[in-house]
Amino acid sequence: MIFLWTFFEIAGTIAFAISGALVGISRRMDIFGILVLALSTAIGGGIIRDVLVGNIPPNSFKTSLYIVLTTVITFIIFFIYRNQILRYMSRRKLRKMYLLADTLGLASFTVTGTTIGFNAYPEYPLFAITLGLITAVGGGIIRDVLAQRIPSVLQEEIYALPSIIGGIVFYLIAIIGDDYWYLASPISFFVVFFLRMIGIYYHLSLPKVR
Amino acid sequence: MIFLWTFFEIAGTIAFAISGALVGISRRMDIFGILVLALSTAIGGGIIRDVLVGNIPPNSFKTSLYIVLTTVITFIIFFIYRNQILRYMSRRKLRKMYLLADTLGLASFTVTGTTIGFNAYPEYPLFAITLGLITAVGGGIIRDVLAQRIPSVLQEEIYALPSIIGGIVFYLIAIIGDDYWYLASPISFFVVFFLRMIGIYYHLSLPKVR
Amino acid sequence: MIFLWTFFEIAGTIAFAISGALVGISRRMDIFGILVLALSTAIGGGIIRDVLVGNIPPNSFKTSLYIVLTTVITFIIFFIYRNQILRYMSRRKLRKMYLLADTLGLASFTVTGTTIGFNAYPEYPLFAITLGLITAVGGGIIRDVLAQRIPSVLQEEIYALPSIIGGIVFYLIAIIGDDYWYLASPISFFVVFFLRMIGIYYHLSLPKVR
Repeated sequence: MIFLWTFFEIAGTIAFAISGALVGISRRMDIFGILVLALSTAIGGGIIRDVLVGNIPPNSFKTSLYIVLTTVITFIIFFIYRNQILRYMSRRKLRKMYLLADTLGLASFTVTGTTIGFNAYPEYPLFAITLGLITAVGGGIIRDVLAQRIPSVLQEEIYALPSIIGGIVFYLIAIIGDDYWYLASPISFFVVFFLRMIGIYYHLSLPKVR
Repeated sequence: MIFLWTFFEIAGTIAFAISGALVGISRRMDIFGILVLALSTAIGGGIIRDVLVGNIPPNSFKTSLYIVLTTVITFIIFFIYRNQILRYMSRRKLRKMYLLADTLGLASFTVTGTTIGFNAYPEYPLFAITLGLITAVGGGIIRDVLAQRIPSVLQEEIYALPSIIGGIVFYLIAIIGDDYWYLASPISFFVVFFLRMIGIYYHLSLPKVR
Repeated sequence: MIFLWTFFEIAGTIAFAISGALVGISRRMDIFGILVLALSTAIGGGIIRDVLVGNIPPNSFKTSLYIVLTTVITFIIFFIYRNQILRYMSRRKLRKMYLLADTLGLASFTVTGTTIGFNAYPEYPLFAITLGLITAVGGGIIRDVLAQRIPSVLQEEIYALPSIIGGIVFYLIAIIGDDYWYLASPISFFVVFFLRMIGIYYHLSLPKVR
């Protein structure tokens, strides 16, 4: 189980580091501004999660892994952009890459957040589901607030909903019993990923006032 | 006493859920964006309060009450607006309703924050008063930052001051002794409510540089 | 050692209180808005630091010192501006004063954050250094987000880098042994201060994508 959890934590960190670095570059920040934004996006949600669950010091500070990983990814993205390696790539394709990274991060961190919430307080279902949501959207909210955009979670068609449904699915599988526990993470991951991808692909949108 | 505390916690949650939902609608968000904004406003201040006092997991996650309540309120507000039930209401009246909800939330959460601060560390008066202020203005600050407005607390004429005075009043009554303890909450609530209402009504403003 | 730590904590609080108050005045806030902004800037970074290290209630609430100090400074700055005492001072000189205050705060809080991180978990070097950085830039980020500016740390030439280097220097000196421990704070302080001052003076900038 710890292996699976670490896998999703690393996957989410990489994905959000990419999304944070891309936003920093689009805002013409210098390399350190980009790094700070990538770090806030990649480890911000996890720090809030660990504070809310009383896991002090937060997981991303206990090992150099996540900070080093985010730093390396930021420098790679920066190098690719500076040397215009992607210059033949259309803007539409880059936008798709951004959305893919963001969705992978959303799905991965829904899983890690819900897992920690469920392990800590299995008696509070809403805690596990909300912690999954906060972990998944927290880093992106910090990224967007720092870059002065209205957060995606408030504006994009299908963003918070997949994470909430994924958290519920996780919880339902996890309470069945220890025999099915190992299925909760991957199924929840695919539910979130799949639902948001469908939302993006078909431009689904939820009702507005007008 | 627990009854009174829960009463103010529920009242504040309802009031701030309304204020958050109204801001979300005015920003033309979809139903889930509005819900996320209403939740951030209604339970954000309380989560910060619980983290600062070491109350983990935060109160709003221990029971479904506050999240469910906020969700129901958001759907009701959304339904009312979508069906234009208030269409004959003037903009001025709607603005008054928003200010009333926001003031009820400010007063209620000043009380719940100061109570928790006082119970946890009665030896630090500034902690109780500041915790009341942070609880009262925290949700609104999150709401305004997410919706990209300069927070009311920094701009509006009389906003933080009533909460600070209410917290001082609470503290002074509470330290008199156990016999007067039950008076601290309601008196503090009315002080905050009354002072801000006077501020709004008479357009009072504090000095500026120019 | 406690004396030195308190010295830097007070110096950082004063410096950031000044920077927060100046931003509030430039945004034409009233006296209470300015006070809330100065408080968020001066004690915000320290509160995040204390929450991340599990130091509850945060240091700034355990004594009235920091809140009272920030309040007094805010009123002094407000009085100076309102009475145009600095009216013969050029805008360039005022800007320099702002940068000086901000740099003193950055250097002081790098020291207090790294010290607390190192004392709490000497086995996690990244924790101490990151905690120094978060403490140093946290208050300024809150100030800029509340005042709706893109945070300095993401935009200004040399801002996060001096704090990170200062944290590394602190850590390296502190692990040598108890005999050199007393040198870590002042040397780290001067490294941060000196590096950022050089960055400002020579308009150094880090690479951008274009």
